[in-house]
Amino acid sequence: MKTLKSYVCGRWHEAASGFATLVNPSTEEEIARASSQGIDFGEVLAHAREKGGPALRAMTFAQRSGLLKEMSRVLRDHRDELLDLSRQNNGSTAPDGSFDLDGATGTLAFYSAMGKRLGDRTFLTEGEGVQLAKTEAFWGQHILVPRQGVAVHINAFNFPAWGFAEKAACALLAGMPVITKPATATALTTERCIELIVEANLLPEGALQLIVGNTGDLLDRLGPQDVLAFTGSADTAKMLRSKENLLASCTRVNVEADSLNAAVLGPDVAAGSPTFDLFLKEVAREMTQKAGQKCTAVRRILVPQDRMDEVQDALIARLEKVVTGNPADPSVRMGPLATANQLEDALRGLAELQQGARIVHGGAKRIDGVGAPEGKGFFLAPTLLRSDDARNAGPVHDREVFGPVATLLPYDATATAAAEVMALGGGTLVTSVYSDDAGWIGDFLVRGASATGRVYVGSQSSVGETPGSGAALPQTLHGGPGRAGGGEELGGLVGLRLYLQRLAIQGSKTLVNELAGVAS
Amino acid sequence: MKTLKSYVCGRWHEAASGFATLVNPSTEEEIARASSQGIDFGEVLAHAREKGGPALRAMTFAQRSGLLKEMSRVLRDHRDELLDLSRQNNGSTAPDGSFDLDGATGTLAFYSAMGKRLGDRTFLTEGEGVQLAKTEAFWGQHILVPRQGVAVHINAFNFPAWGFAEKAACALLAGMPVITKPATATALTTERCIELIVEANLLPEGALQLIVGNTGDLLDRLGPQDVLAFTGSADTAKMLRSKENLLASCTRVNVEADSLNAAVLGPDVAAGSPTFDLFLKEVAREMTQKAGQKCTAVRRILVPQDRMDEVQDALIARLEKVVTGNPADPSVRMGPLATANQLEDALRGLAELQQGARIVHGGAKRIDGVGAPEGKGFFLAPTLLRSDDARNAGPVHDREVFGPVATLLPYDATATAAAEVMALGGGTLVTSVYSDDAGWIGDFLVRGASATGRVYVGSQSSVGETPGSGAALPQTLHGGPGRAGGGEELGGLVGLRLYLQRLAIQGSKTLVNELAGVAS
Repeated sequence: MKTLKSYVCGRWHEAASGFATLVNPSTEEEIARASSQGIDFGEVLAHAREKGGPALRAMTFAQRSGLLKEMSRVLRDHRDELLDLSRQNNGSTAPDGSFDLDGATGTLAFYSAMGKRLGDRTFLTEGEGVQLAKTEAFWGQHILVPRQGVAVHINAFNFPAWGFAEKAACALLAGMPVITKPATATALTTERCIELIVEANLLPEGALQLIVGNTGDLLDRLGPQDVLAFTGSADTAKMLRSKENLLASCTRVNVEADSLNAAVLGPDVAAGSPTFDLFLKEVAREMTQKAGQKCTAVRRILVPQDRMDEVQDALIARLEKVVTGNPADPSVRMGPLATANQLEDALRGLAELQQGARIVHGGAKRIDGVGAPEGKGFFLAPTLLRSDDARNAGPVHDREVFGPVATLLPYDATATAAAEVMALGGGTLVTSVYSDDAGWIGDFLVRGASATGRVYVGSQSSVGETPGSGAALPQTLHGGPGRAGGGEELGGLVGLRLYLQRLAIQGSKTLVNELAGVAS
Repeated sequence: MKTLKSYVCGRWHEAASGFATLVNPSTEEEIARASSQGIDFGEVLAHAREKGGPALRAMTFAQRSGLLKEMSRVLRDHRDELLDLSRQNNGSTAPDGSFDLDGATGTLAFYSAMGKRLGDRTFLTEGEGVQLAKTEAFWGQHILVPRQGVAVHINAFNFPAWGFAEKAACALLAGMPVITKPATATALTTERCIELIVEANLLPEGALQLIVGNTGDLLDRLGPQDVLAFTGSADTAKMLRSKENLLASCTRVNVEADSLNAAVLGPDVAAGSPTFDLFLKEVAREMTQKAGQKCTAVRRILVPQDRMDEVQDALIARLEKVVTGNPADPSVRMGPLATANQLEDALRGLAELQQGARIVHGGAKRIDGVGAPEGKGFFLAPTLLRSDDARNAGPVHDREVFGPVATLLPYDATATAAAEVMALGGGTLVTSVYSDDAGWIGDFLVRGASATGRVYVGSQSSVGETPGSGAALPQTLHGGPGRAGGGEELGGLVGLRLYLQRLAIQGSKTLVNELAGVAS
């Protein structure tokens, strides 16, 4: 059995004890083991802060851009191998693995292109300079400079390549060194990504370190110039945010948490119309892609109340066609959940949801998977629930079941009601609206936009051109208020800001412009 | 004795019990009493969320701008009365009171002008739209919309007018209703400000409420769409940030905390030069303005090591001329500390600083003030300390004494050393650099900029034109990393962002542009 290694302080660290076992979630075969035992996290931080940080800060954006370009290339060059690891350890089908891996290389490439445009600077200016007194003898200019600490990235189990890469792209381009920590249970793909990057000798010493296994006292050692970016459950996020040292030193903490994303069918969308078909196709895909293990997946489906039966039947017709099983079998369209714990938690969650809704398709128990040994594998069938009282559906607005599970909820066809029901989720990463009525969508935005980080509009005019609501594209914000964690990632330049300190420079115009590198 | 009232739910609330007493800090006469007892904070929040929020969100920026303009006018029209209240309750000299009040009206006017420029929109767009697929059928645009909660502002005792106004200007212009809570001990001026605004009937119902006294369970009731902005001590900030409900619902919390701001004398600045004189004049003013009770005051003075004696003598010569006493006496240039507690805390702090430094001017005990009754008043003389080992000066980098107190620290004349010593403060609101050598200042910035929220450069080219490093101007950022709280206020549009939710809209270009109000 393979033993995964951490990459710290410029060397590969193999632990001698304290191992967790990684399994293939389709077969429950043991495939690797991982432990961080023996790592001196103080040394890891010092290595990043004293070697990686200064090296990155001395580089221009164009130079850092070059690093990302090479990282993207190396991962793309090993696409097949990485997809195979993802199948083994994450139970990913080929399209699911591609969604993760092509997302990773695409995001690295996007930020590489942005860095090239930012050019031969080492920090950013923001906005125009502004005169602060009666003459140009007192002038102000905002700049954004790299924070002189380390970026610690704690990623979720569901995106072993993209999770690492989307965070690392932003931090490295901004000029901060990275310590990345994948979820232990699915660390196989991430470890190989880092190994490829290290073997290719692309990055300055200390710019990128990998922790496989638990983080020991790493987080207790973070200070005012460091950044912690976490993707995962709201409960873990709250625990991390509450850490004494992070609160005391105002360490920046960015969270992307599971949220109860909503898809809304507008009242204008007739059965059989292209927009209706798009709605059905995309909702079914959002439920089943990566077996529903996406923080952007649709969990609540808001439907005009007189259309509930129609939508329910049409969605079930699509879900019935999904073949669940071992991705090694070519007929399989949806894989297992990633771990035994995830399956258990999903089953517990389904029991809770039934306090506020009833199952209309699928079921609340493990199934056998096509192409998987009998009794083995963490398979859950696509499961649709329904509540007929959206405002009193209890856990439906609060309990995320991280699997192929969503709940139909009725509303009275007004934009106000749709926005109010959506907002019962306490903040979402994404809300999708299927409608061709700009006026209705506008009303929905006025009432509900502040409760979400992204509004995806599915309409006749975009059929066939979009990757759907679940894709977190580097050009646009990934993050949302409240339950979604309150974080901000990606979104072009927005994604760099987490790693930059904004400050004002004040003084005479000539001096300020010289310091900011702005032509007077 | 006057009883201060809260303004909640559209009416003035006078408590029947639970009073704190407000005194004149120069004479210790009792001047007013304050209590929030009997207020139903659930009702206060509902009033803001259900009345004030919708009314403000329905207004355009231009309309909200009009509100701020009128608020500024009303306060300016009562300038003399408000300065008198500030003298009575804060012990402010006329220049100190003006610094607060003119800062308040100026900041309201600045944001009013900005709102006018933002025009007939109700929310903001950010950046250019971006094509997300091969055609314009999938397009993205970031927008910033008002959060649909309430902005709770907890202000410090030292700026009763500006503290209220700078926060309220940003929140109201962004479209969020405000509940403002001044420090109880110095609430006299703030209460009158709100009374003037209410009497003038300027704002929509529920847009602005005032709590005089403690906040009861107000903060425990905040949720995901609310914002808490706090100015005060790092300890209180940490306590607020740690509140369970704020952590659980990702309520936005912005903090401006006391910090150990540094002034740095560059090695190029010769004795007797205009820049040297500017340094002395401004550092002496930063130490004594508002009796040193400013979060932006200079606490650490970094001087090339061979210039320590010279700077010490020159600063003492200036500090010796400061007449400390009752601002009612026309000879007085510096007033008392604001409360007995503040004096006690400053004396405790001075004792702690002496673990790492020695007093070279002033003293570590209360003095009698000119024009004040013997034995009465919270007076502390301007006090200069000195350490000859900047890197081992212990509490000097950590313990803020919120009074007319600063410490001289030597460095070896290199920009690297100056930046490192500055950064020992763990994050500052402002760092001032006195130098005419752009190369040296540039080196200092590269090494130290990320440890501060603002760099103020005092040079020959700006002599006579600047308000000094202590003024937090609305055009430029007020906030700093780490010890300074990690917050961001003011800075033009930056100041609005705390109250706005950023989101991406995705869909076909035509639809997105129509929703975002952008011309295609």
